[in-house]
Amino acid sequence: MISSRALRVPASPIRRLVPFADKAKKKGIHVYHLNIGQPDIETPSEWYKYIEKFKNKVVAYTHSQGILPLREKFAEYYRKWNIEVMPDEIIVTNGGSEAIMFALGVVCDPEDEVIVIEPFYANYAGFAAYLNVKLVPVTATPENGYRMPKKSDFEKVITPKTKAILFSNPSNPTGVVYTREEIQTIVEIAKENDLVIISDEVYREFAFDNKNSISAFEFNEIHDRLIIVDSVSKRYSACGARIGTFITKNKNFYSAALKLAQARLSPAEITQYGTIGLLNSSEEYMKKVMKEYEKRRDVAYEEIKKIPGVIAHKPEGAFYLSAKLPVDNAENFIKWMLSKFNVDGKTTMVAPLSGFYATPNFGLKEIRIAYVLDSEKIKDAIKIMAKGIEEYNKQKN
Amino acid sequence: MISSRALRVPASPIRRLVPFADKAKKKGIHVYHLNIGQPDIETPSEWYKYIEKFKNKVVAYTHSQGILPLREKFAEYYRKWNIEVMPDEIIVTNGGSEAIMFALGVVCDPEDEVIVIEPFYANYAGFAAYLNVKLVPVTATPENGYRMPKKSDFEKVITPKTKAILFSNPSNPTGVVYTREEIQTIVEIAKENDLVIISDEVYREFAFDNKNSISAFEFNEIHDRLIIVDSVSKRYSACGARIGTFITKNKNFYSAALKLAQARLSPAEITQYGTIGLLNSSEEYMKKVMKEYEKRRDVAYEEIKKIPGVIAHKPEGAFYLSAKLPVDNAENFIKWMLSKFNVDGKTTMVAPLSGFYATPNFGLKEIRIAYVLDSEKIKDAIKIMAKGIEEYNKQKN
Repeated sequence: MISSRALRVPASPIRRLVPFADKAKKKGIHVYHLNIGQPDIETPSEWYKYIEKFKNKVVAYTHSQGILPLREKFAEYYRKWNIEVMPDEIIVTNGGSEAIMFALGVVCDPEDEVIVIEPFYANYAGFAAYLNVKLVPVTATPENGYRMPKKSDFEKVITPKTKAILFSNPSNPTGVVYTREEIQTIVEIAKENDLVIISDEVYREFAFDNKNSISAFEFNEIHDRLIIVDSVSKRYSACGARIGTFITKNKNFYSAALKLAQARLSPAEITQYGTIGLLNSSEEYMKKVMKEYEKRRDVAYEEIKKIPGVIAHKPEGAFYLSAKLPVDNAENFIKWMLSKFNVDGKTTMVAPLSGFYATPNFGLKEIRIAYVLDSEKIKDAIKIMAKGIEEYNKQKN
Repeated sequence: MISSRALRVPASPIRRLVPFADKAKKKGIHVYHLNIGQPDIETPSEWYKYIEKFKNKVVAYTHSQGILPLREKFAEYYRKWNIEVMPDEIIVTNGGSEAIMFALGVVCDPEDEVIVIEPFYANYAGFAAYLNVKLVPVTATPENGYRMPKKSDFEKVITPKTKAILFSNPSNPTGVVYTREEIQTIVEIAKENDLVIISDEVYREFAFDNKNSISAFEFNEIHDRLIIVDSVSKRYSACGARIGTFITKNKNFYSAALKLAQARLSPAEITQYGTIGLLNSSEEYMKKVMKEYEKRRDVAYEEIKKIPGVIAHKPEGAFYLSAKLPVDNAENFIKWMLSKFNVDGKTTMVAPLSGFYATPNFGLKEIRIAYVLDSEKIKDAIKIMAKGIEEYNKQKN
């Protein structure tokens, strides 16, 4: 009685090892959670301020595309990033998640194909299976610092069923921030093959070393084939707000997505008001947060490159670091860390990267670290992992 | 570049005439909105009380199935309705909408068929198109008071592709509350043909004349093939909370739906806390609200049956009344009411029922009235509609 599509939806690689962590905790072991992108940074206080101001007597549906004051505020925010969109080119969504669902639904019929750069944000696979869309991977390798694959690599996998290219920039899970030239590759492929670009830019602010991340929107010639997916979750440390956006200047995409939005009526009311608060928070908040993440990035990278045999490049953005470990199998190693290993009652949990690949058996030795804890904790967590690798490999031999 | 599925998603019949209402308002005409199920009743004050109590410094993801205290509270609530489910048989969803999406996704592959009793909640058609599921209608007629169709009517449309029966009880849009015998029909068909029952029970409390609505859960023999869809939107007048539930005792359904839930990470955090407040509100609130709706139902029915040529039965539940009008085309009539007609600067907007049918050209003379305004307004609104019908038909001849 169960559908094939549901069976194909993969269990989240980020969450499926949680039972092992729970068991460790029951034994009294402290687990450093570097497995999930849930930051420990405080949400701007404006969130609660705006929520408290809001006291409508009837908690009502809003417009399906989201309340106008919020869409206006978003448009103002995007303008600062040279993304010139009007409020009626924005649909407020239940997190970036729903925006991805809308994008895939608007562009793809069942069995259609979407090219992704693997490793990619693991939940893309879940949404694609849900909607019977086929993800076709082009691989970025740890040896190459997970940089953008070559144009010819994309061209090789294009078929008559290919409808779009979906990628995140700055990249979750690799921390790569693509250069203008790298995005140009995607732009050219899309134009030459009549494809849609779905650009997931939820980590827009997270670009370090005084670099700026470049939005796909900066390429004017693709505005008619571009959908931007965005979310306030990461930049305001407000994952639980579940507010994202679906952005497009293509009126057909917009009205199709709006019909999907109308079917589910509206996003929550109060969280939209709270998000106006987030967008009104100070630029100092953001600067401070970015400085903090940059420091953590430095610490995480310093520590991980000390481990013999690890292949890692310095992440330029997001708050992730992907690396290849000198172990036989990263998932087994993570389970072992949680069930058999600790240093002074502490152990470390990271995410296995194989779940971020569409190609079977790729990324088996790779992991993702989310540097969402403070520097001292990150340092300790990675040192523990380093000892774990040594011990794990001793046991294996 | 746009998908066929997106093109097939119908525009909401409830919302698509809104531009006509907006134009009327611009001309200074007052529009009585009986077209949408957005109640005017105050949300219980516990909603804001619980929201204010909640001040986590980091607005974080919750468990994908929803926070445990809320699922426990829901289980307690369901127990009062003889629905004996455990917290781990409940997934908290973004409104009833997402619960329907999960149910269709878990049970159906593209091209699979789901039987619906038409007229049905119009957004079922949107979700089905989104997921490439085919809705196969069995028709309930106004002449028959929109009662449950005969068993043989269902049997006629079953094919090897049929996977489930989806229906709402109490019914949106007809206001029918099915008897035990009527639900028994569905139960038998499901058992005899190995189908899943998706029971949309969001209007559970809305049964008048001292009748109780009967949950499909009361039929023990179908627990392994039952998914209940629920929402707090209507009973607590909290449509903007966007909190619903997906309920099943079938562990395979549950774990498949949980994978879909994990892909979208979690429902909003603060609205889950607010909903604990709703579930803690007094029974007096609910009694008062139901009494109020019963009064409105009486007024709406009294007024509509005065109109010569109307076919209407007294609704037993929900807060809707469906009726067949003595006009050539209900949608044209509604547009005319909004653009050409008013009484003392006031006019009435209702929903055309054709959008609630899957069979083309069915329900063309029918409308849905949502009695979500106070009795005096409803009386006035329907009196205006009665005059409108007279005038409209005069013009036509």
